[in-house]
Amino acid sequence: MSELRKDPVINRWVITLDDKTFTPHPDSEFIHGLSEHEPACPFCPGNEDKTPHTITEKKDTSGAWSIRVIPNNNPYLKVETPLQRKSIGIFDYVTGMGANEVIIETPKHNLDIDTMPLNAVADVIKTYADRINDLKNDTRLEYVLIFKNRGKRAGGHIEHAHSQLMALPVIPKKVQEEVDSAEAYFKLKKHCVYCDLVANEIQMKDRVVVENASFLCVTPFASRLPFEMWIIPKRHDSHFGNINNDEIQGLSEILKDSLRRMNKALSFPAYNYIIHTSPQKAGSLEHYHWHVEIVPRIKSLAGFEWGSGFYINPTLPEETAGYLRSL
Amino acid sequence: MSELRKDPVINRWVITLDDKTFTPHPDSEFIHGLSEHEPACPFCPGNEDKTPHTITEKKDTSGAWSIRVIPNNNPYLKVETPLQRKSIGIFDYVTGMGANEVIIETPKHNLDIDTMPLNAVADVIKTYADRINDLKNDTRLEYVLIFKNRGKRAGGHIEHAHSQLMALPVIPKKVQEEVDSAEAYFKLKKHCVYCDLVANEIQMKDRVVVENASFLCVTPFASRLPFEMWIIPKRHDSHFGNINNDEIQGLSEILKDSLRRMNKALSFPAYNYIIHTSPQKAGSLEHYHWHVEIVPRIKSLAGFEWGSGFYINPTLPEETAGYLRSL
Repeated sequence: MSELRKDPVINRWVITLDDKTFTPHPDSEFIHGLSEHEPACPFCPGNEDKTPHTITEKKDTSGAWSIRVIPNNNPYLKVETPLQRKSIGIFDYVTGMGANEVIIETPKHNLDIDTMPLNAVADVIKTYADRINDLKNDTRLEYVLIFKNRGKRAGGHIEHAHSQLMALPVIPKKVQEEVDSAEAYFKLKKHCVYCDLVANEIQMKDRVVVENASFLCVTPFASRLPFEMWIIPKRHDSHFGNINNDEIQGLSEILKDSLRRMNKALSFPAYNYIIHTSPQKAGSLEHYHWHVEIVPRIKSLAGFEWGSGFYINPTLPEETAGYLRSL
Repeated sequence: MSELRKDPVINRWVITLDDKTFTPHPDSEFIHGLSEHEPACPFCPGNEDKTPHTITEKKDTSGAWSIRVIPNNNPYLKVETPLQRKSIGIFDYVTGMGANEVIIETPKHNLDIDTMPLNAVADVIKTYADRINDLKNDTRLEYVLIFKNRGKRAGGHIEHAHSQLMALPVIPKKVQEEVDSAEAYFKLKKHCVYCDLVANEIQMKDRVVVENASFLCVTPFASRLPFEMWIIPKRHDSHFGNINNDEIQGLSEILKDSLRRMNKALSFPAYNYIIHTSPQKAGSLEHYHWHVEIVPRIKSLAGFEWGSGFYINPTLPEETAGYLRSL
């Protein structure tokens, strides 16, 4: 039995199956038997000279760093590059101006978000918000994307827990689409589609993975990939940089818990998470609502998905959520 | 040295690098030492009873089939399913009505498009057009997507050369976006963006891989992945089903030649190709222009690409085209 489901925000169709024969990709290679300190790891304490300079860091009570933010070793974009735009024929270019930073989330080589202490996760989230807000001072930057690639299938090539930040002089297409689609919904209905999504999911219950005072984690109705999860704040705000202290605490709890359930269900898969937030100069938008999307990379994308933006998901989001709730 | 490039059709930004250290994924697993007939292969002659019934076939002069079209063994969508649409809360569903067919391109297990005789490739292309046109009789179907997944990294799990067809009761999001973006360009400029693209590329020369009387193959200006190629017809037409006999011949030649060059450059990579065409009921559109996109799957997609639709391509399209021209 298959059906087609439309994402209520961006109108993307997904074929949803209930395929009991679906087999996920095996574990990430980054998990088992790691030690707390790995002498050859460039992100472990003592090897700071193997990375570029520190942009900012947090220290623990002993004075050692607990989080370090550094430029990418081989950055795709550089703030030193002058911002220039040109066209040749019908083709538009912009110089490679921007920033590409790495957030080393913990000094301990064998931890990830799900196993780090709660206050350490809160510091990671606070660091994300601080970087986004700090980069508003560079008015050439239009968008800041924060994401995590964990495991090689997810594009992560260093096992020490880290996230990345890309600050861009343009707005990525999918971001603009998401903001535009949410705006179209708002014009029609006069309320935010993500606020409606939270209300619908709390009422319907069957796609809720976990909930706390300030956040909801759901398997989205039109999940593109098995075990996709969205964490949505209950308070409407378009910009992640406006997260408050209660929300930092709430997001830390629900992110840890969601990843712990995912790791228990799928035995430590490669995964990505991405913070979806409004453009840097957009101000406060009544139609857009920041959130976090988590995607375990347990299924390859084929030509069909690539060519059409039309996904085939072998698992039912309601069954996935029920299973994740039970763990 | 990096730059940001915008695709002139759909306004997608790509970071283009000139990274001499980029290493492609290794060969597809589907290439070396295959025999002409593989007794265990469900797509080889003699094993027709291991697949569903034949929808249509072409025969050679001896009466044996040279191309077979069959339903997918485990179809995602079925024409027998009644088409029903419903909503619950803010969520829209459609029943799994549609078609999911497999085009077995050749009886010979060890051939692919690049090594098949030219007239056999022409028959494959004619079969694609015939299926698209035949499916217009089912007015519930809004879109027909034809694509090829070759090699496991591209989502292809059977090594015998085949393509797939998905006939859908909805229009995929990326298709609608491409058509809408081309329409916005037409409204502004009063000419087709793809016609302009062909004219610009022929004049600029440096991204042309190969050209014949009716088609141009280019590495697109804002290529998302290394060695991406687009084959664009010189005659404006929005619908692939309107391809004429000269164009079937021309497309067969340039598709064979482009894939041969790709295989020589990359040693038989996993790849996808996808026919981009207008929706089934759209009629003749002056703003849209059908074409074929070829994507070797020699680089993984990371969370950054997934989350933002913003790609990082380590190779320069101009260098890639120069190299492909030289082969």
